[in-house]
Amino acid sequence: MAAAQEASSREAFRQAVGNTLERRLFYIPSFKIYRGVAGLYDYGPPGCAVKSNVLAFWRQHFVLEENMLEVDCPCVTPEIVLKASGHVDKFTDLMVKDEKSGTCYRADHLLKDFCKDKLEKDPNLSVEKAEELRHVLAVLDDLSAEELGAKIKEYGIMAPDTKNPLSNPYPFNLMFQTSIGPSGLSPGYMRPETAQGIFVNFKDLYYYNGNKLPFAAAQIGQAFRNEISPRQGLLRVREFTLAEIEHFVDPEDKSHPKFSEVALLEFLMFPREDQVSGQQARIIPIGEAVSQGIVNNETLGYFIGRVYLFLTRLGIDKDRLRFRQHLANEMAHYAADCWDAEIECSYGWIECVGIADRSAYDLRAHTDKSGVALVAHEKFLEPKEVEKLVIAPVKKELGLAFKGNQRMVVEALEAMGEEEAMEMKATLEEKGQAEFHVCTLDKVVTIMKNMLSISKEKKKEHQRVFTPSVIEPSFGIGRIIYCLYEHSFYTRPSRDGDEQLNVFRFPPLIAPIKCTVFPLVQNEQYEEVARHIARSLTAVGISYKIDVTGTSIGKRYARTDELGVPFAITVDSTSSVTVRERDSKQQIRVSVDEVASVIKEVTDGVSTWADVLWRYPTHQS
Amino acid sequence: MAAAQEASSREAFRQAVGNTLERRLFYIPSFKIYRGVAGLYDYGPPGCAVKSNVLAFWRQHFVLEENMLEVDCPCVTPEIVLKASGHVDKFTDLMVKDEKSGTCYRADHLLKDFCKDKLEKDPNLSVEKAEELRHVLAVLDDLSAEELGAKIKEYGIMAPDTKNPLSNPYPFNLMFQTSIGPSGLSPGYMRPETAQGIFVNFKDLYYYNGNKLPFAAAQIGQAFRNEISPRQGLLRVREFTLAEIEHFVDPEDKSHPKFSEVALLEFLMFPREDQVSGQQARIIPIGEAVSQGIVNNETLGYFIGRVYLFLTRLGIDKDRLRFRQHLANEMAHYAADCWDAEIECSYGWIECVGIADRSAYDLRAHTDKSGVALVAHEKFLEPKEVEKLVIAPVKKELGLAFKGNQRMVVEALEAMGEEEAMEMKATLEEKGQAEFHVCTLDKVVTIMKNMLSISKEKKKEHQRVFTPSVIEPSFGIGRIIYCLYEHSFYTRPSRDGDEQLNVFRFPPLIAPIKCTVFPLVQNEQYEEVARHIARSLTAVGISYKIDVTGTSIGKRYARTDELGVPFAITVDSTSSVTVRERDSKQQIRVSVDEVASVIKEVTDGVSTWADVLWRYPTHQS
Repeated sequence: MAAAQEASSREAFRQAVGNTLERRLFYIPSFKIYRGVAGLYDYGPPGCAVKSNVLAFWRQHFVLEENMLEVDCPCVTPEIVLKASGHVDKFTDLMVKDEKSGTCYRADHLLKDFCKDKLEKDPNLSVEKAEELRHVLAVLDDLSAEELGAKIKEYGIMAPDTKNPLSNPYPFNLMFQTSIGPSGLSPGYMRPETAQGIFVNFKDLYYYNGNKLPFAAAQIGQAFRNEISPRQGLLRVREFTLAEIEHFVDPEDKSHPKFSEVALLEFLMFPREDQVSGQQARIIPIGEAVSQGIVNNETLGYFIGRVYLFLTRLGIDKDRLRFRQHLANEMAHYAADCWDAEIECSYGWIECVGIADRSAYDLRAHTDKSGVALVAHEKFLEPKEVEKLVIAPVKKELGLAFKGNQRMVVEALEAMGEEEAMEMKATLEEKGQAEFHVCTLDKVVTIMKNMLSISKEKKKEHQRVFTPSVIEPSFGIGRIIYCLYEHSFYTRPSRDGDEQLNVFRFPPLIAPIKCTVFPLVQNEQYEEVARHIARSLTAVGISYKIDVTGTSIGKRYARTDELGVPFAITVDSTSSVTVRERDSKQQIRVSVDEVASVIKEVTDGVSTWADVLWRYPTHQS
Repeated sequence: MAAAQEASSREAFRQAVGNTLERRLFYIPSFKIYRGVAGLYDYGPPGCAVKSNVLAFWRQHFVLEENMLEVDCPCVTPEIVLKASGHVDKFTDLMVKDEKSGTCYRADHLLKDFCKDKLEKDPNLSVEKAEELRHVLAVLDDLSAEELGAKIKEYGIMAPDTKNPLSNPYPFNLMFQTSIGPSGLSPGYMRPETAQGIFVNFKDLYYYNGNKLPFAAAQIGQAFRNEISPRQGLLRVREFTLAEIEHFVDPEDKSHPKFSEVALLEFLMFPREDQVSGQQARIIPIGEAVSQGIVNNETLGYFIGRVYLFLTRLGIDKDRLRFRQHLANEMAHYAADCWDAEIECSYGWIECVGIADRSAYDLRAHTDKSGVALVAHEKFLEPKEVEKLVIAPVKKELGLAFKGNQRMVVEALEAMGEEEAMEMKATLEEKGQAEFHVCTLDKVVTIMKNMLSISKEKKKEHQRVFTPSVIEPSFGIGRIIYCLYEHSFYTRPSRDGDEQLNVFRFPPLIAPIKCTVFPLVQNEQYEEVARHIARSLTAVGISYKIDVTGTSIGKRYARTDELGVPFAITVDSTSSVTVRERDSKQQIRVSVDEVASVIKEVTDGVSTWADVLWRYPTHQS
């Protein structure tokens, strides 16, 4: 019951925020006059301003601060690129179709809804059955098409709208497909992430950076995901803005020169082990997390710290922000470690930033597919004599033994690390054969001594050639903004107490409009002062809204509090004006000539409101 | 011959600029490691920085300065929206196919190439034939599919690559098509312009603006055009960034309160009449152009002036910028007037900004298709007695007379203006019938007296309801940037005169990197000072590049001149440094603690370099 109550109060809160956002045009369902398209939203004027403030701060905090190489690539992407990256084959969700109406559903959503509904509403559910349903929910993401189909059959789940039977689940590719040029022979897709545009440019960017590692490239842009049936409003959409960083680093040295600058930061972390053992997220200093090996390396840790600073400076509540490590089964097989910045909102904990060590996967995939070596070089000051591992499979013997699987076995053998290879060499010499796990076949095969030779050879090397690792912080800008809306929203009683007024407590940095200018009463003199102030605000680059309606000052404050405008300038004389701060409602008197620069100061963060309060006489309203 | 020489020097200049741009990664052919896709380009690091500076200035100059309502709509657009706007039916180019290989070409391009080639290279061409080819070139844009096909046949034009015969020309829709959702039943397109996203939101934006006109909405975003065979490098691409303004205004009052602020500006204008009579563009003050009726109205004139200021402040050469009025046959049939800001570059005069009075066309089209009235209201202070024109078609009679065309005739009758209607009334009363041109049928029909009644009735009205007109300045950001590159590029001899060095004279506002920091020699002390300066630059938001290589200062200057970096800080002591300006190569001495704020001052435009030269001792290198 407590859970149900909490759910309904969450729902009410979400409604209150959503109503305000939609009424004040923070967002608008796209193509609304044509009844809209699920999963597509416009940013209306205040939403668009918030978004461009968030992106400007992102550029300042990441690109400028770290001297990143920002690029801007097209959304239209030819098939070969996304074939190499794996998206053509694997960027899918499992779908079922209403067998009569043809309506499509996400298979896992239907199963999830069924289990949740049973658990919440069926009073006759046996303990065993409840246990089973909870287990299904826990492993939902890991179920294959067959397993999902079997469960849907077993539970007798029907199409929610019609109660018709459902098809078996099958994969649906989530990319929007199109055709490049008039021939119809060049398939293309709208990119599902911006990262691939960076990877294919690695060679040029590395050269631009003076052939030095580490360096980071960054990109802000639209990405697309043709959801089967979008839910969760602004959180699950078909087109969204991503801001992605690809930090290229020597896999043998993932230290970060500026790590000490973030090492003492502490915040909620939720390591893999704690999740598995059923514990809660806990506060860990990031320095400790790295030194204890909870976080794989300094560079990953550095970005986690920087993401924390970024999000909290935007106005995300640090108590509803946690960094959750991916479980082994969640992580892409090539990833070395992955942490999601999750923000709690009325929909639960939402992944807003993914910070992954993607190892060398992407650069290798594009090297293989394109034939262009995406590698880095470390020149030695003087040639080094190195012992080099040489693994030479004897293809004839392997072919005889493994037939169609030969290629997979050969590749797996060649990919052995030094330690593993030397162990196998020893085993082969001792026993004449060795057991070997081929991960691409997911089985153990027996390797005979005559099937390969392993040796170490001495060579003079002038340089080391290697594929860099990639650490990727990837920001879902729309999700961050939505969570920011929820974290910034509160209500307070009007002065006469007869209604609740809505406020967004956006920091000045992010507020869509930095201040409003109100003449206290409608007269030509005050309006002229207001226009003068407006011009000085424009000159210093501060966005404002001027309101010369005769509405009461209280009503005008309420209107702009609802837009999150942090400062209001009331023109109540021709020489000085009253400046009011949104959340404290404190007021100070500032001269007409100074007021634009004071607003600029507190908006740019050069001074805080508290600083300014000291300098100017306060005003009692 | 002079023309050929000029063409070859233009070509050489274009090559020089292009080489520098590509070598320094201002742009990169997209997906280059996969041999690229025609018409798709990436902005590399300096190009991306230039682009984001241009967009930031655009926001400051237009959105902030005019208090515009900025919105941000998706690229994926459902068919119905683009059906209403006319793009599904009319956004096409005429294409021909190689009948054997299937390769596609733009029909007009082939004809144009043929004519130009003949005119340039055929010494035996008769005067009459030359005259004919020049005429074909002049009317090329007006030729129908049939006319184009006939010319291609007549001249025996074959596929350029194979010399195979060509198909007849047929229209190819230039939108990238896709499918929204999994059903395959919801066709969608990647938007060909951002404007439609604003039009469909008119009702909400009007409300947001307090139900007042005029107001402007703005949008920056990607647009797409699936070119048949892209040419002209960065000027004709398949995906590009548009920045569009839709200024909504009462059609009966297109005055602009700030027109006087631009009225005295004067620049090259090329009115329709001058083009037709074979004259050159000439300098006209915009105030005069409006008062003489050359430019249709003040609002259009205001934006022409503001666009002029925008482009010249970016660094576009005012002598290679002109505003050319559309000829009657170029203009969309609904447009009241249209002017293109054209910039001259090595490809000729290129349309970079279109400034059109689109009248009420778009809002009417969406009103009709969606059934939602996109209109504005003017409330009268007291009710007005008005004479209202009432046109009442007698549908039965019209149906008998026009059968399937009835609807078109009725619509055309109802759309008559007051003058036209009263004339028809007089004619019908006098002669019993009248000739009437139905533009949607493109023919003249005879209307009998019994087919409609026309009268004027007196009514009390409390408000006027009308569809606003739209003035649309639309900016092709990539084209502006490309022209800016050409206008900013020059070469100068190196100090010892043995090579030509490339320079981009970007204004500080636009420069991709604002300054470089060089320690004069490699030593730990100087490098520490350089790092200290770097931190202060970051703190004030100035992008910089630090270069601690031991390369000669001359070489380091040359490298960054080529990126258009306006200022270089050479660390040659621990207390003060040398600041060098790119174009004048003048140098001043500034203390280490002051240098970041001096760079900030000249970059933000608070001071000019000349101002700063007065304040600090100059340095002789």
